[in-house]
Parts: sequence; structure tokens; C-alpha cells
Amino acid sequence: MKDQNQDSKKITSRTNNFSQWYLDVIREADLAENSPVRGSMVIKPYGYALWENIQKILDQEFKKLGTQNAYFPLLIPKSFLEKEAEHIEGFAKECAVVTHHRLEEKDGKLTPAGELEEPFVIRPTSETIIYDTFSKWIHSYRDLPLLINQWCNVMRWEMRPRLFLRTTEFLWQEGHTAHATKEEADQKTLEMLEVYRKFVEEYLSISIVKGKKTEIEKFPGADYTSTIEAMMQDGKALQSGTSHMLGQNFSKSFEISFLDENQKNQYVWQTSWGLSTRIIGALIMSHSDDKGLVLPPKIAPIQVVIIPIWSSDEEKLLVLEEVEKVKTELEEASITYKTDDREGRPGFKYFEWERKGIPLRIEIGPKDIQKKSVVIVERLLGNKEFIQNEKRLSFIKESLEKIQKTLFEESRKFRLDNTREISNYKEFKNIMSEKPGFIFTHLCLDKSCEEKIKEETNANSRCIPFDGGVDNSGKCIYCGKDAPNKVLFGKAY
Amino acid sequence: MKDQNQDSKKITSRTNNFSQWYLDVIREADLAENSPVRGSMVIKPYGYALWENIQKILDQEFKKLGTQNAYFPLLIPKSFLEKEAEHIEGFAKECAVVTHHRLEEKDGKLTPAGELEEPFVIRPTSETIIYDTFSKWIHSYRDLPLLINQWCNVMRWEMRPRLFLRTTEFLWQEGHTAHATKEEADQKTLEMLEVYRKFVEEYLSISIVKGKKTEIEKFPGADYTSTIEAMMQDGKALQSGTSHMLGQNFSKSFEISFLDENQKNQYVWQTSWGLSTRIIGALIMSHSDDKGLVLPPKIAPIQVVIIPIWSSDEEKLLVLEEVEKVKTELEEASITYKTDDREGRPGFKYFEWERKGIPLRIEIGPKDIQKKSVVIVERLLGNKEFIQNEKRLSFIKESLEKIQKTLFEESRKFRLDNTREISNYKEFKNIMSEKPGFIFTHLCLDKSCEEKIKEETNANSRCIPFDGGVDNSGKCIYCGKDAPNKVLFGKAY
Repeated sequence: MKDQNQDSKKITSRTNNFSQWYLDVIREADLAENSPVRGSMVIKPYGYALWENIQKILDQEFKKLGTQNAYFPLLIPKSFLEKEAEHIEGFAKECAVVTHHRLEEKDGKLTPAGELEEPFVIRPTSETIIYDTFSKWIHSYRDLPLLINQWCNVMRWEMRPRLFLRTTEFLWQEGHTAHATKEEADQKTLEMLEVYRKFVEEYLSISIVKGKKTEIEKFPGADYTSTIEAMMQDGKALQSGTSHMLGQNFSKSFEISFLDENQKNQYVWQTSWGLSTRIIGALIMSHSDDKGLVLPPKIAPIQVVIIPIWSSDEEKLLVLEEVEKVKTELEEASITYKTDDREGRPGFKYFEWERKGIPLRIEIGPKDIQKKSVVIVERLLGNKEFIQNEKRLSFIKESLEKIQKTLFEESRKFRLDNTREISNYKEFKNIMSEKPGFIFTHLCLDKSCEEKIKEETNANSRCIPFDGGVDNSGKCIYCGKDAPNKVLFGKAY
Repeated sequence: MKDQNQDSKKITSRTNNFSQWYLDVIREADLAENSPVRGSMVIKPYGYALWENIQKILDQEFKKLGTQNAYFPLLIPKSFLEKEAEHIEGFAKECAVVTHHRLEEKDGKLTPAGELEEPFVIRPTSETIIYDTFSKWIHSYRDLPLLINQWCNVMRWEMRPRLFLRTTEFLWQEGHTAHATKEEADQKTLEMLEVYRKFVEEYLSISIVKGKKTEIEKFPGADYTSTIEAMMQDGKALQSGTSHMLGQNFSKSFEISFLDENQKNQYVWQTSWGLSTRIIGALIMSHSDDKGLVLPPKIAPIQVVIIPIWSSDEEKLLVLEEVEKVKTELEEASITYKTDDREGRPGFKYFEWERKGIPLRIEIGPKDIQKKSVVIVERLLGNKEFIQNEKRLSFIKESLEKIQKTLFEESRKFRLDNTREISNYKEFKNIMSEKPGFIFTHLCLDKSCEEKIKEETNANSRCIPFDGGVDNSGKCIYCGKDAPNKVLFGKAY
């Protein structure tokens, strides 16, 4: 626990400078910090506790669907990356390259030695190394479907790093599956996207749009990429999880084939899907306010903070006795809590836990004990309630549920309020330069229209929404020609 | 699940070729395999499930003691490693070095580009990068103790790789703590060693010796290293977990200081401690037999396998109905199980789960249902019991406990039976060349005696046991001079 007397710095207001506000919230909530390795962050205990909660929930969901965890090498031979043309094209420019396997003293300085015959890259994603292995594991239709997931670190060299959102190293899970038929693989792609949607909406209270990426924005090596797209409080878009239908692109490059029930050799159909520590950036930017972090109860590492208040030893004894009772109640209800019984002024403590986004604060002082009640304060609205002891547990439970729901409703409302359907490109440019949000509009299949929009407005296509995206009733907003789809545009994080 | 009809290969017997037996067991139990990246392994789902169980148990213990998880960068600037002289000396020869941050096409081939000003090494361990951060986190005595743990991958280039035991990349946890006093750090060092002992003995059923490493064998940069040493079935020693007292070596190199209660500036005292996927190698070599893997119930991913037996659809219906009842009983008792209801001969199934080391097998056929009983077979002894249905759950519970205990007792007995106290160097050499085990003998403080023993016998000092190691009653087995300690020797894995 950080020393409460240490200077905490002011949090910039969201309206003044959203970017600085984001960094201030991370610093004041003690979630992460920059490391001496440029582009890599240190995830501090409180931030890592969030990641652990995310892992626990998703891991359970994956396992329910029959997915098994495994672990594959960090290093990928250069030749593996080269096997799938689009894939290497997409990742070559951001790969950390390992060229030597020891350091040796030379002229009093340690220099790389033991040069490798073939350099390795640190995995930017693991399709190639995993699918090389799949080609050995899969022989017959009886080996299918193969459903594998890996929790690990990956590395993509980042020129403009930003805590959680863009870091050279990040943590994630990557799922990789192989199926006998295209239909099964299509189904798995969408099934896993739905797992992400459910998790992000129900646990993180972030409202999202589900859809398919355009050709330009899809994963390098995929037939198509499905995505969930969220909107941050500044109106910018954040891709929150993706699930790729890889078709037979990798199975053909890596010779992953099986004998079907008719003894015929077939290439497998594959999917891959991932969600990373980036989602913590989305979580911060979706709900937090000028006082600091705001966390949905279902993901908060600490749901309730208990602050005992006393001014004499006698009072302390009395108050801590009542605190024990509250703790027992919370434990029995599986509500996570922390008791802050450090010496020091309660005001400092309120301030600290507020910045850290603990959903509920319980204050218990001598007067409360006399009145057989406690004070409960919600982080989100700051409302203060005096609750009789016998009603406190049910109040807490209801309050946590209500907060979870309110945050989601607010996120949904904000996204809808800031999504506009327009067909005029001048208006598009104005909106994106003034107050960005989502724009839902027709786009033709000519890649250059999408590219030019990106060049001219700095907004790109987020997805073709599953809901309403297939629609040939209008003309491309850029060139005016026939357009088979409506596409959601936004400025990206 | 692997296709049961695929050819399984024979397991070499332990007495014929212990090394080959070890690899055969890993292959047949489907735990891990070599990857195309030399020295790095693929941990397969069943092997990874073991690691997940290990993580879950240890993580709970760490958290009970107030340890917090965090995450630090994979890459370490070369200059960081150089700050602690012993440390760099110990690790320079086995570091993977990152020198470039992208691949570029050149003469039609992808070559490393974007050379880094300062190369990075992939962490072989994280003292340096973590302690650079500690120096920013610690200011006052109120920030202490700082108790941090990290679950991650590390890399030490391995010239003679061997699955689980020596792999270039491995998974582990590394704990790092900082304290105000030497006493506290000493205490933490031993406290964490005790966590490892308890885990290894109580969950993995491996009997160990606790002790202190000699100067030669200690961690590079530590004041001293404490260790738990196990003995494998071939008599060789395996270091199973280490806890290092780092003193102020790193706090002085990395300037980690704090203002004490008297406003005086002090360097912190530190510890670090780790346990890795290597322990899975120890687990395999401690208990398994010529039929395959043997797992202690407390760590087994699947404790019971249920094999329904039928020869008609009618029988199948009847049998599966009873299986449901067994499943409910097991679930209520939190016993993990798998039902193998694939088509195919039961014999094949028995064989497969035997190789995978599932502690108990329940067979249920039509005759058993008539007799209101089930057949229960213990993997360890192969004994077959007919148990009445109303007694089956209590039989299973007792049996699992008994197996857990038996495995530990056997491990303990084997270790003691193969530990000899001798004082004659010729005898030492004979034992180590013929049938290695532990030798407990006096050793002086002259490093060259220890080095020569290693050279001449290929055995090295495992530890100065806490129990009986401090003993000046004898002379050094090598030089005959005064010796303050008795040291445990063994051939190392």
C-alpha cells in the first residue's frame, strides 16, 4: 500500500486534455507506469489485479467451450513468418529480432556474441509457430476440432507507445482452433466473438458494436476478421477483441491436413481470436471521471473499502469490533473488500480510494455505532446513505448491481448519442475534425475510397456492423458509386 | 483428446535406460514435446494443466503472505545486467540478445533492420529490471516491506536441452521483496523456502532436503541461496526451488534506499525466490513407472477416470445412467474426473489413462450394475476392488488420500535409503560412478576442493543441510583439513 502522505498529483480534467487525463488516472490509481525499456510498461499490482480478474473470467468461459490451454515458444524462426505472405507483410515492420545467444567481453565492453544461423523474432502473435505444431498433431478427423488457447506476452515494436493502449510488449490470450469444415470454423469465429462481447458488456460494462472488418483492416492472413468496437468518452473508437476466420490460408502454408471419414485428405479450417491488456485502457477510458478511476463492481479487485473512524483507543476498539462484523457479512456474500485501518485522516483515505475507483465505501465511526448504522458512499455518484446495520448487506448487494448496470447503460447511451448516420462527406469531415464519434455510412468496395477517407480525416473504418451493415440502399460517401455495405467509421486508438 | 487408435509407442524400462524412459513417459502421457525452436518446448494441454494446478496452489500461498502480483518488461537493457558484477558474470553466457526491431527485404530476403542503439537481453531472471523500478517505488519505511511476485517466461540459452529439466525458455514465478532490516529479509528468505517445501512435499509428494548452497553454487548476486533438493529415482539430485537472500548487493547497485523512522537514509535488504516448470520434470521422475506417468492426486488434473462398459444400446443406457450418479457424487466432493465414453475397447482406454497417470479408474459395466457395485483400480498398485455403490465415494476419498501419502513415504524412503554418510574419497568416487545417490560428508571452505570433486566425480554440492550441515566434527573429504560443515553431494540434473 502506498504511503497516503505522499504527494498525489492533480488529475487533469477530461474536457481540458483527454490524453493527459488518461495518463493522470493511471498514475493516481496506481495501475501502471512506463519502464526504462521504451514502449514497455510495468503493470503495477493494482493494474495486474484487474488483468487477473479478466483472465479468470475469460479462462472459465474458454474452458466451458472445451478449449484447452497450452504453451508455445516465445521465439519464432524467421522462415516460419515468411510462409504466409500477408502475415509477414503485416508484422515484419514491428518485430523484435534475436540475433545472438550470449554476451561476451570485448575491449572491456559486453557485446553480443554467438550469432545465430537463422534469426528469431519474438512472437508478435503465434499463428505460425502454433500451426507448425498443429500439422504434427492433426492426422484424422478424430483429432478435430482442436481448440487451443495460450496466455502469454507478445511484442510488436511501437513507435508511439501509450500505457495499455499501445505498448511494445503486451499480455494477451490467443486462441487457435482447427476444424473439419468451413461451417464449423465460421461458427467458432462468431462464437468466440460472442464470448468477448458478453465479457466486455456484462463484466466491463462497455457497450460495443459487433461487426466484420473491411478487407483493409482485417488480420494479415485471415479470410475475414470479426471485431467488437467500443467508443471511449472522447468519442474515439477502440477495438476491444477480434476473432479471425483464417480459412485454409495457414493450413495450406503449414500443411495441416487430415483424413476425413471417407479417407480423403483435407486441409483444416482455422480460427484465431485474441483479447489483450489493451482492454484495460478501454476500461479506464469508458467510465472514469475527473476524480479518478471508476470500476464496474464485477471486475473491481476490491468492491468495497471499509474505513473505520475513531479518535480514542476506546473508540477504536468499539469501531473495529463492528468492522469485523461487516467483514464477515461481506465474506459470506463473496464480496471483496479492503479495510483501511491505517492511522491518518479519513479524508485522505476517501480521496485515495476514490482515485482507485473502489465502487463502494463504508464509513463506520462511534456515532454510527450508537445509531446502529453505517455510512455508505457510492464512488460513481458520490451519494451518501445512512443505512441501518440489518439492511446494510442487502443495500450493498443492490448497490453493486445497480452500479454495474448504470455504467453499462451510460456507455450504451453515450455510444448511441455519438453515432450518426450521414451520407455527406463534407459533414463527415467536419464531425471527425470537431467532435469525433461513430459515423455510419455507405462505402463501396474500392479500397482507395477507404484509404483516402483515412488520409483526409484520420478516421478509419471500424467495422461493417452485423446489425445493419449489409445494405445496398445507398451510394459510397466518398465516390458516390454503388455501395453494398454501410460501414462504421471512427477515429482509432 | 488423442485418438485412441493411434499407435502408442513402447515405454523403455527405467532400469534399461532412465533417460529414454523419462522422454518416453512424457511422450506417452502427452505432456510436452520439442519445438522447431531448438531448446524450447511446446507444453501440451495435459502438461500445461499440471502447471496451472501448480500456479493456483502457489499463488494462493503467496497471496496469503501479502505478496502482490505484477508484471515487468521481458527485455532488459544490457547496461542493467552490467550493474551487478556477479550477476552479469553468471548470466552473460546464456542470454538471448535482441539487436534489431524489424525485418526488411534486402535482395529478396528478409533481414534484421532497425538496429538498436543498446541491445536488450531477454530476461534470464528479472532482478535488475525489477529493482530499477523498486528504486522509484521505495522512499520511506512506510513503503516496506514490498512483496512482489511475477508469473512469466524467462530464457537462458541451453546447449544440452531436455524437456522440462533444461529448456532455453521456461515458465516460472519469481518473487522479489524489499525489507527495512536484515533480520526481516533473512526471515522472508526462509519463509518462502518453507512455502516451497510444503508445496513440493504435500502436493507433489516429493521428499526434499532443505539447506543452504555453498559459495560456488549460490545465485549470482546473492549473499546466500537456500534450496530444496530432491532425489530422482535414478539417484540423481534435482534442485526444486530456491530462495535467495540478496543482502544489499542489488539495493546498492540500483540505489534502492528509504528514510527510516529516524529520518536516516538506508539501503533496503532484499530476497528473491523462484520455482519453474522444471518441477514438472521432478514430478515425473519421482513417481512414474514403466507403465507411464504416476501423479499424486492433489496435483493431478484428473483424479478419477470413469470407464463405462457396454455391448448393446440397452446396456449403454443403463450404464450411463449410473455414470451420471457417480459424476454427481464426485462433483459434490470436489473430485475432478473425466468420463471416457468413446466407442472402443475398454482395454485400450485403461492403457491410455494408465500412461497418463490418472490416480483412480472406475469401471462400470452391466454386471456391476446388477451387483450394485463398481470396480475401482488404483493406478499406483494396479489393485482392483469391487466396491458397493453406497461405499464408493468414501472408498475413493480414502484411496486418494492414501495414494498421496504412499507416494510421499516412498519418495522419502528412497531418498534416505540412497543417502550415505562417508568420509573416504575413494568410496565417494565409487558410489558416484556406480550407483549415485546423496553423499553427506565434511567439506572445507577452500573452493578448490569442491571444484576438484566436481571435476573428478561429476557430482557437486547440493546444499549444506539445515539439519546437520553445521558440524565441525570432521575433516574435509578431499584435502583432510578442518571442515566447518557437512555438505550433501549428488549428481545434478
